Amino acid sequence: MSYTLGELAQKVQGEVVGDDQLVIEKLGTLEGATKSELSFLANPKYQSHLSSTSAGAVIVKNQELAALVENAIVVANPYLAFAELSHLFIPETQSWSGHHASAVIADTAKVSSSAVISPNVTIDAGAVIEDGCIIGAGCAIGRGVTIGKGTQLYPNVTIYHDVIIGESCIFHSGSIIGADGFGFAPKNGAWEKINQLGSVVIGNSVEVGASTTIDRGAIENTLIGNGVKVDNQVQIAHNVIIGDNTAIAASTAIAGSTKIGSSCTISGGVCIAGHLTIVDHVHITGMSMISNSIPEAGSYSSGMGMEPTSKWRRTVARVRRIDDMAKQFSQMKQQINKLLDKVDNK
Amino acid sequence: MSYTLGELAQKVQGEVVGDDQLVIEKLGTLEGATKSELSFLANPKYQSHLSSTSAGAVIVKNQELAALVENAIVVANPYLAFAELSHLFIPETQSWSGHHASAVIADTAKVSSSAVISPNVTIDAGAVIEDGCIIGAGCAIGRGVTIGKGTQLYPNVTIYHDVIIGESCIFHSGSIIGADGFGFAPKNGAWEKINQLGSVVIGNSVEVGASTTIDRGAIENTLIGNGVKVDNQVQIAHNVIIGDNTAIAASTAIAGSTKIGSSCTISGGVCIAGHLTIVDHVHITGMSMISNSIPEAGSYSSGMGMEPTSKWRRTVARVRRIDDMAKQFSQMKQQINKLLDKVDNK
Amino acid sequence: MSYTLGELAQKVQGEVVGDDQLVIEKLGTLEGATKSELSFLANPKYQSHLSSTSAGAVIVKNQELAALVENAIVVANPYLAFAELSHLFIPETQSWSGHHASAVIADTAKVSSSAVISPNVTIDAGAVIEDGCIIGAGCAIGRGVTIGKGTQLYPNVTIYHDVIIGESCIFHSGSIIGADGFGFAPKNGAWEKINQLGSVVIGNSVEVGASTTIDRGAIENTLIGNGVKVDNQVQIAHNVIIGDNTAIAASTAIAGSTKIGSSCTISGGVCIAGHLTIVDHVHITGMSMISNSIPEAGSYSSGMGMEPTSKWRRTVARVRRIDDMAKQFSQMKQQINKLLDKVDNK
Repeated sequence: MSYTLGELAQKVQGEVVGDDQLVIEKLGTLEGATKSELSFLANPKYQSHLSSTSAGAVIVKNQELAALVENAIVVANPYLAFAELSHLFIPETQSWSGHHASAVIADTAKVSSSAVISPNVTIDAGAVIEDGCIIGAGCAIGRGVTIGKGTQLYPNVTIYHDVIIGESCIFHSGSIIGADGFGFAPKNGAWEKINQLGSVVIGNSVEVGASTTIDRGAIENTLIGNGVKVDNQVQIAHNVIIGDNTAIAASTAIAGSTKIGSSCTISGGVCIAGHLTIVDHVHITGMSMISNSIPEAGSYSSGMGMEPTSKWRRTVARVRRIDDMAKQFSQMKQQINKLLDKVDNK
Repeated sequence: MSYTLGELAQKVQGEVVGDDQLVIEKLGTLEGATKSELSFLANPKYQSHLSSTSAGAVIVKNQELAALVENAIVVANPYLAFAELSHLFIPETQSWSGHHASAVIADTAKVSSSAVISPNVTIDAGAVIEDGCIIGAGCAIGRGVTIGKGTQLYPNVTIYHDVIIGESCIFHSGSIIGADGFGFAPKNGAWEKINQLGSVVIGNSVEVGASTTIDRGAIENTLIGNGVKVDNQVQIAHNVIIGDNTAIAASTAIAGSTKIGSSCTISGGVCIAGHLTIVDHVHITGMSMISNSIPEAGSYSSGMGMEPTSKWRRTVARVRRIDDMAKQFSQMKQQINKLLDKVDNK
Repeated sequence: MSYTLGELAQKVQGEVVGDDQLVIEKLGTLEGATKSELSFLANPKYQSHLSSTSAGAVIVKNQELAALVENAIVVANPYLAFAELSHLFIPETQSWSGHHASAVIADTAKVSSSAVISPNVTIDAGAVIEDGCIIGAGCAIGRGVTIGKGTQLYPNVTIYHDVIIGESCIFHSGSIIGADGFGFAPKNGAWEKINQLGSVVIGNSVEVGASTTIDRGAIENTLIGNGVKVDNQVQIAHNVIIGDNTAIAASTAIAGSTKIGSSCTISGGVCIAGHLTIVDHVHITGMSMISNSIPEAGSYSSGMGMEPTSKWRRTVARVRRIDDMAKQFSQMKQQINKLLDKVDNK
């Protein structure tokens, strides 16, 4: 995998400043890149790194910045150009090919001959695996599942029965799609299971992180839109609906039947209660608790950052007494008003 | 799978209003159900949906409500009736049968001939799999494990050595039972592992969600009571004891040696510290932090809901200074008292 | 597995008080141990248990305590001695041996003949499994992975391509090392994937809990130091660096490019934002949110413990109005100062 700087510039409609024949073998950081590596400057904060970098070339956003290094690609959006070029440098992630002899594929499953079925995969009856899919080692594909063209499952992914997955998706290891939603009715002090009769339908170009779980619907389906990106260890409960291109960071949990709009970004460690509606273009900062619907686009928060433990303990003790404090505060206001009256009337 | 309305009513000791020969093929929501589907009204808030539903029939709790639709089943608890009827409409979740040839079963394991052992399962020495169990593809059953009658493991579940699981349980994919508790003793600036010599004992009718982990005890066993329901991505540490019929929602973490009573409900995203005792019938709301024992039944909280980020930042800044504010507040009280004295004495 | 009390004392450089020929078959708790079991007293709080224990012997820290039981081992650090002795009483955790016939091992992988490769393992091209490793059932080892001597993987662990793991590590089931970091560049309202071209490098004597995920770096590697201990369900994002002997409890999430020092302890349910630097010897209490770098050793917190829900709701309502309260508070101060002026001047 090596390209001239000119070839790379062409792929991102950029302009070379310097040697367009320079051979680039890798992408690198400004701090760590060597002469055969291409780096990028996305954040102006790091502009000073340009003078010290050993990178063979740097992607920058204008000629002034290009002048600070020996070789550059100038493009309007260096971060995006870097993302696009990253596709050219992916190493081989697995070497299995064809349908491995150790895979167990039910007779009624339809598996494209162009799909890679790695060792120890199981594919249950009626499942459909379309062209160009890569199913990693040990994945378990349930009865009646459909997986669209070019979708990749890394090893040890589990897809429950009847789940429908679109094209060009990526599922990381340990992700589990279509497990039962958490539904029980109280019955004489115990719990009667509500069998989860819906499924999960996932759009195209969705990425699901390692160990993330998306539950099947109770009656209707859980729905994940096109272009949704979900990080690791995220929990998406039954009947959640997530709009196109929404991105959800790690360790977030979304309770049942909540509907999240498109183009939202949800940071890590967030908890979202059930049966809420969150509109498009909502941004939620880390570790927030969302217990009400959000009818207006914008940024929302509730996480409180740390302090030294001893100071924090005093803060917490005060917060716990804030209701008393507020009541006394009202009394004081009255007293002051009386005092003002008296003093002014004298 | 189809039933007449009369048959379904009989199964839940309900009364048909309308056509008891109506054929029901599916369960549905009030909004989405069609003529061959049965829906239910559990929450009076949605009563208005009765006039607009296209459901063939609706489970309702009295004759007045039944009068609002063409066909109904009248029962005291429509939600419970719906849960009970949901058992009749479960699709086939997997088609594997018998002991699949690709499964690796140790010679000394005792596996019931009525158990389904799916492809690529491994069952280590001395394990016992009782009648009617369904062990999903890729599950790993450790040495000496016992799994009681009728328990189902979905694919890719891992059960460590010596774990004991009761009857009629359900374990969802990615759940891991019996991994080592997190125990280390400091030793010269590093950590000496405390080998976890206990196990996990799980009662009957327990359900464990996808990617949930229940660690083995350090010395004695971690204990999960009968009828306990655990959602996805829950962490239950070593030597935790959970009483019967307690339900724990997703992404909750319970630290070591904590004892939780029976019939508790713990919402999602909760963290419970170690070595605590929580009595029966405690309800904990979402994202709460429990750092003290709870000696009285009731509802407990500490999660704080979101606000727009700009407002929230002002709130946090004030909260951080609340200790100063409270001190100034005390001074002001003294000043006011002095003023009151002076003014009154004049 | 049985030892005389004398043998056990010798292994921890302790001194026997009582019968050094007493046969110990197990370790036990002070409350639960029987005559053939050895217990320990680490916390002086439980000293009263010495009089009631049925343990055959107890590890204690001085002669005075030894005098309270029939048989004892006296050592300076009973907790550490107990940890060390726990290694002697580990049961057989699995019975597979050699390279199991059902394992799929690529031709170019180099697997030590002394390594145990359990059933249904897959090992991709170029992977190296060194002497004495134990690879549990169903593990998937990616292309080009290196696993150092004596490292154990419990069943259903997934290691992505090119990850490097040191010696004497333990990986619990469901842990996933080297999945893609969460990196996307915005592009016309959708997300362009930034391929994650770095890897993960893990030191020696690291333990990783069940269902924990450690992502590969975007460009450079994610780095986990020697002796790091990570509990279950922890998320470690791309390019995180963790110093030697740091311990991280369950359900904690660490965002990308954050650098954590050595000998830190991070409690459960903590969220740490990205691009931060946390120095050595920092201790973070449960459920804290860390959104700034921590340049000084010490203890840090932000979790707020629960209260009864009704009281908590009043507290939250007040906190939400704290900014108003603070503003009124300033006005009151001015009014009081004026009053003081007037009254004093009269």
